[in-house]
Amino acid sequence: MSDDCLFCRIVAGQIPSRQVWSDDQAVAFLDIGPWQRGHCLVVPRRHLVDGTSQADAWREVADGLTAVARLVRQRLGAAGVNFLSNAGAVAGQEVFHFHVHVIPRYEDNPGMSGLVRRDPTAAQDLDGLWAHLTALE
Amino acid sequence: MSDDCLFCRIVAGQIPSRQVWSDDQAVAFLDIGPWQRGHCLVVPRRHLVDGTSQADAWREVADGLTAVARLVRQRLGAAGVNFLSNAGAVAGQEVFHFHVHVIPRYEDNPGMSGLVRRDPTAAQDLDGLWAHLTALE
Repeated sequence: MSDDCLFCRIVAGQIPSRQVWSDDQAVAFLDIGPWQRGHCLVVPRRHLVDGTSQADAWREVADGLTAVARLVRQRLGAAGVNFLSNAGAVAGQEVFHFHVHVIPRYEDNPGMSGLVRRDPTAAQDLDGLWAHLTALE
Repeated sequence: MSDDCLFCRIVAGQIPSRQVWSDDQAVAFLDIGPWQRGHCLVVPRRHLVDGTSQADAWREVADGLTAVARLVRQRLGAAGVNFLSNAGAVAGQEVFHFHVHVIPRYEDNPGMSGLVRRDPTAAQDLDGLWAHLTALE
């Protein structure tokens, strides 16, 4: 764990997050600046800088990626998802702990451009959304 | 293998591609419509529709993702990469065989917008680029 790493501190529970999934290797939580409703991040528990140096990084988040995709399809009616991971400041990486964006996509906002044409309403009522995503069936 | 799947046919060698890496589970080749110079796709050898239903899909491409990221850093001087996988037509998926875009990013074109502000010169001399990427050291 890196003490000055935001995501290490979230994983350790030192900073609160709206967690939607976890296993012994990775954690998934709602992005606080979502591009689309239900935008989540999947991060490995251990501190890895990005997804370029260790294939294990991708193995550790593999179950989380599919679990979150399934969750947003089932609970939010997403018709698809984009998986995005930025490595390096030049690529838009802002937190230097490996993370994969799982961005739900909806029928009313199709196309690649949805990655940058962010939904301005996506950040509304994150707590309600979180409750919906984590409610027992 | 699906006979009408473009990427199955590339994996099987029935359609030529500019392959830059492979192992027993996955293959990586240059995208013929690159957004940035050296833009590659990593695909599992077996036919999986997208990255949402089986965590194994991500495990199978894990080594390819890091290998291609290393290659474009070392051979092309990329300063970072974006990893992107679109699942579902609504998310921009066009070929329905799971694939992850590995998009090199360069110091002269930083920022998330580089994902959509495509480099119009990136498709020039793909054969020369391929030779450079696959030359023995």
